[in-house]
Amino acid sequence: MKIAIAQLNPTIGDLANNAKKIVEAAQFAAHQNARLLLTPELSLCGYPPRDLLLDPSFIKSLSIELQSLAQKSPSQLAILVGTVTPNHDAHIKGEKPLFNSIAWLENSQIKKVFHKRLLPTYDVFDEDRYFEPGRQNNYFELLPDSQSSTPLKIGITICEDLWNDEKFWGGKYYEYNPLEDLLKFGVDFILNLSASPYNVGKQKIREKMVKYSSKHYQTPIIYVNQIGGNDDLIFDGNSFAVNKKSEIVLRLKAFEENIDFINLQIKDKDLSLSKINDEIKIEEEEIWLALVLGVKDYVKKCGFSKVVLGLSGGIDSALVAAIATEALGKENVLALLMPSPYSSHHSIIDAEALVKNLGINSYKLPIGDIMESYKILLDPLFEGTKLGIAEENIQSRIRGNLLMAIANKFGHLLLSTGNKSEMAVGYCTLYGDMNGGLAVISDVPKTRVFSLCRWLNCDREIIPHNILIKSPSAELKPNQTDQDSLPSYEVLDEILEGLIHRHQSVSQIHEAGFDLATIDKVIKLVASAEFKRKQASPGLRITDRAFGTGWKMPIANRWKIN
Amino acid sequence: MKIAIAQLNPTIGDLANNAKKIVEAAQFAAHQNARLLLTPELSLCGYPPRDLLLDPSFIKSLSIELQSLAQKSPSQLAILVGTVTPNHDAHIKGEKPLFNSIAWLENSQIKKVFHKRLLPTYDVFDEDRYFEPGRQNNYFELLPDSQSSTPLKIGITICEDLWNDEKFWGGKYYEYNPLEDLLKFGVDFILNLSASPYNVGKQKIREKMVKYSSKHYQTPIIYVNQIGGNDDLIFDGNSFAVNKKSEIVLRLKAFEENIDFINLQIKDKDLSLSKINDEIKIEEEEIWLALVLGVKDYVKKCGFSKVVLGLSGGIDSALVAAIATEALGKENVLALLMPSPYSSHHSIIDAEALVKNLGINSYKLPIGDIMESYKILLDPLFEGTKLGIAEENIQSRIRGNLLMAIANKFGHLLLSTGNKSEMAVGYCTLYGDMNGGLAVISDVPKTRVFSLCRWLNCDREIIPHNILIKSPSAELKPNQTDQDSLPSYEVLDEILEGLIHRHQSVSQIHEAGFDLATIDKVIKLVASAEFKRKQASPGLRITDRAFGTGWKMPIANRWKIN
Repeated sequence: MKIAIAQLNPTIGDLANNAKKIVEAAQFAAHQNARLLLTPELSLCGYPPRDLLLDPSFIKSLSIELQSLAQKSPSQLAILVGTVTPNHDAHIKGEKPLFNSIAWLENSQIKKVFHKRLLPTYDVFDEDRYFEPGRQNNYFELLPDSQSSTPLKIGITICEDLWNDEKFWGGKYYEYNPLEDLLKFGVDFILNLSASPYNVGKQKIREKMVKYSSKHYQTPIIYVNQIGGNDDLIFDGNSFAVNKKSEIVLRLKAFEENIDFINLQIKDKDLSLSKINDEIKIEEEEIWLALVLGVKDYVKKCGFSKVVLGLSGGIDSALVAAIATEALGKENVLALLMPSPYSSHHSIIDAEALVKNLGINSYKLPIGDIMESYKILLDPLFEGTKLGIAEENIQSRIRGNLLMAIANKFGHLLLSTGNKSEMAVGYCTLYGDMNGGLAVISDVPKTRVFSLCRWLNCDREIIPHNILIKSPSAELKPNQTDQDSLPSYEVLDEILEGLIHRHQSVSQIHEAGFDLATIDKVIKLVASAEFKRKQASPGLRITDRAFGTGWKMPIANRWKIN
Repeated sequence: MKIAIAQLNPTIGDLANNAKKIVEAAQFAAHQNARLLLTPELSLCGYPPRDLLLDPSFIKSLSIELQSLAQKSPSQLAILVGTVTPNHDAHIKGEKPLFNSIAWLENSQIKKVFHKRLLPTYDVFDEDRYFEPGRQNNYFELLPDSQSSTPLKIGITICEDLWNDEKFWGGKYYEYNPLEDLLKFGVDFILNLSASPYNVGKQKIREKMVKYSSKHYQTPIIYVNQIGGNDDLIFDGNSFAVNKKSEIVLRLKAFEENIDFINLQIKDKDLSLSKINDEIKIEEEEIWLALVLGVKDYVKKCGFSKVVLGLSGGIDSALVAAIATEALGKENVLALLMPSPYSSHHSIIDAEALVKNLGINSYKLPIGDIMESYKILLDPLFEGTKLGIAEENIQSRIRGNLLMAIANKFGHLLLSTGNKSEMAVGYCTLYGDMNGGLAVISDVPKTRVFSLCRWLNCDREIIPHNILIKSPSAELKPNQTDQDSLPSYEVLDEILEGLIHRHQSVSQIHEAGFDLATIDKVIKLVASAEFKRKQASPGLRITDRAFGTGWKMPIANRWKIN
């Protein structure tokens, strides 16, 4: 029996076009004589729809669109579509009003609807906000072809449903294990329909876990994942399948919308070997592809085609320019060089070299005269005060204003270029260099920015060599470098990793070899930058703890990690 | 038996000082011969602690602080303290790692810990993210004094635990009703320890619901609420008690930290009449007090004492200046007047009249020369284009830069002054007038801004009369008024109320008397302003649906309400 796997890239809330993608996949699958088409979790509305779910007209439209999709389904093809369905008994039973569901469409009918059982509510996930967990075991019977009389028993899991194997994780995160429950019903194989966001190394964990479960329960598992960028979240696709021996027998390309096929042999109820695309071995390549996709989709799904960004001559904006060029094409990237009297000569030269390497458009807008006009206005007020943060920020905000002026005038989306280390300690100017519709590398630590650029340069120089070797500097006052105010980025990033990703205590970080004064300073900086992060643009998430939708920190608070 | 009710204002994460507040309340209560002291939900850490709960050192410190609090409890006084406790079996049972708990302290011991059963996960609440619901019925027995041998049986509910009366609401929102369960155990009376955020009219609903439950179950209920501003949320206190006849017998002042007492008569197990502060009858007064508290606490809890804001001569900034003056004192409010060549003469006069009425400090910083310096730099690029949004935004962002420069230089917190109607339709400039650490009236619709100012002026002119009667204008181009781009605010606010608060469809709003083209325009404006709201500062919440932590909308989406 041929099974089609549609690794789709829906746009949130674009029901008509998402349905069209599913119909096209169904026609192609039918043409290839597939019996079953799999699509990702919530493939009809895109994941995550968030508070669109509170709009009754959204739920109603999903229902109408699903009916219409069923009508359009090719004969002989069963389709599994991800959608949201109402929980009609919610206020009688005291439950949430919706289910995160998979609908089985066949013969112009909605044959059955299955509800997700484990609802993630942590990090970027907030499914308990909207959904009631399903309580049924989700499986269905399908005749493999019109000749056969023995149906296959197929188990359905939706994303998180597969992620509660006590033995694999060394503990349970939910009461039930839907996989275990399904196997008791004697299903022949397991499907997992997911919208699982990317972070570095995620696919390794998925494959390890699915292989483990497949081996433990001696069952084939087909894992289908959404691809595409939706605001801060990047979905990597990477759909794959394992056979009964827990061998990978199919892997779709990461970060690409695609459709592929796998055969289930009826005799031994196992999956045949299909096309196995290589896994991405180098983390830098993986992150690069993720960020390129994230930029491309955010720009497109927001209705833009062109972007603008400021090039300082530093490494962060250089990397963002390279990502944007790859994502959108050089003709759609505009760089602004905005030197001040404090800009070093090499900053302009380096930025211009980058512009040339990438082949993008650029303008130079020196900000000295505007700085002077602010100075004249503010001098009487600032008389007797020392030059400091206020004056530095004015420069950054002049640049932010110019970038937005160009963005507004020509309909470009502004990309901001700050990295995660800066966002963590507040080494960035709110309403200045933080300006932008999308923060491309705000989840990429500075040390990783360097490694990405070195990787990018491995074949030919894209990032000018001088940008790679000079000391990082905001250039907001004479002879400034980042390390005037901060520990070295190697030290800073390690401490941040401990604090943010590993939830470590001061003594644990200290034991790892960092001095208490530095740790204390970093903790204070991170806490006091919360108000900046609150007002940051969405930032593409590539780690398991980003400063985005999954970071919910009170601003007016006096807590200090100890 | 005398019961003390401490309506406390904790600072999130400030465990030592929150504990100190509880100790002081306990000493006072003991001095007044109280037998039992009640404090709000999570009184030890403040509500809501959000992701501080993910820091293991936070949970550990809470435990240490609670132990120390028990040691300091006066003899003969039982204290109920709100705190977070670990769920030690979480990963064995597949549960969340924490409980939202109330600890009963007495005789230097933690006598018992009770867990919240109903965990709100909607709007601004996300308790399922952190907590496992308690499954026990929460009650304890207390001897009313050292002479008596018959204990009282006291039922404990924590905030949401009381909000699931099927008959009152006409439906259930949770499977269980903890109140009903407790009454089966024959408790003598019910406590509710809350951190229930304010919105207009909330106290009316609380009292109605508690009276209903009291009558239905013939039980006295004591309702204790947190007060104070924590980021966007304002807690109003308004603690109260009803007797068996469901009469109000105690009401603490709204929006004030306070401690008061009520007697439970042992004989008939009912509450005696105590002090009943008036309910606030005028909605404008209620909102005013809420916003004043919200500003006061955000400024103080963030470690500031002074604020700066831009005065345009319009009604929004006038109202914010008045609120800030009431909250912080006139000596702590600095107003910047930043006229451009498009500013009308009366704008300056009106702003100056307001400055005089409030007695606050002000500076005038005309922005014409800075505008000119941007124009000179951008003219070659903008040649042949029409004057438009880009040029208008430059002005707003120059003002935003100047305000931040003053804020940075002198250590003031910048208040932003946009109203909810503007925030809804995007009639505001990101990185311009949206700049600020706190958006004071971003949940106040424009029509309500007018009614607040009229109410404020009822005794004497605080907001200059001319500000109240002139047509609203952004004054970013000659002879501009808001109604060039928007429907009248009366119409706009009604449509927004339908869309945002009542989740109405287009046809429902149309049936209410609004034309389809206007509704369509408003829907598009609201959707396209999502990226601005994403980057807005925290805004004080006064309605049941604010654009803050309770508003989770995807930006890159193509949904249109129908």
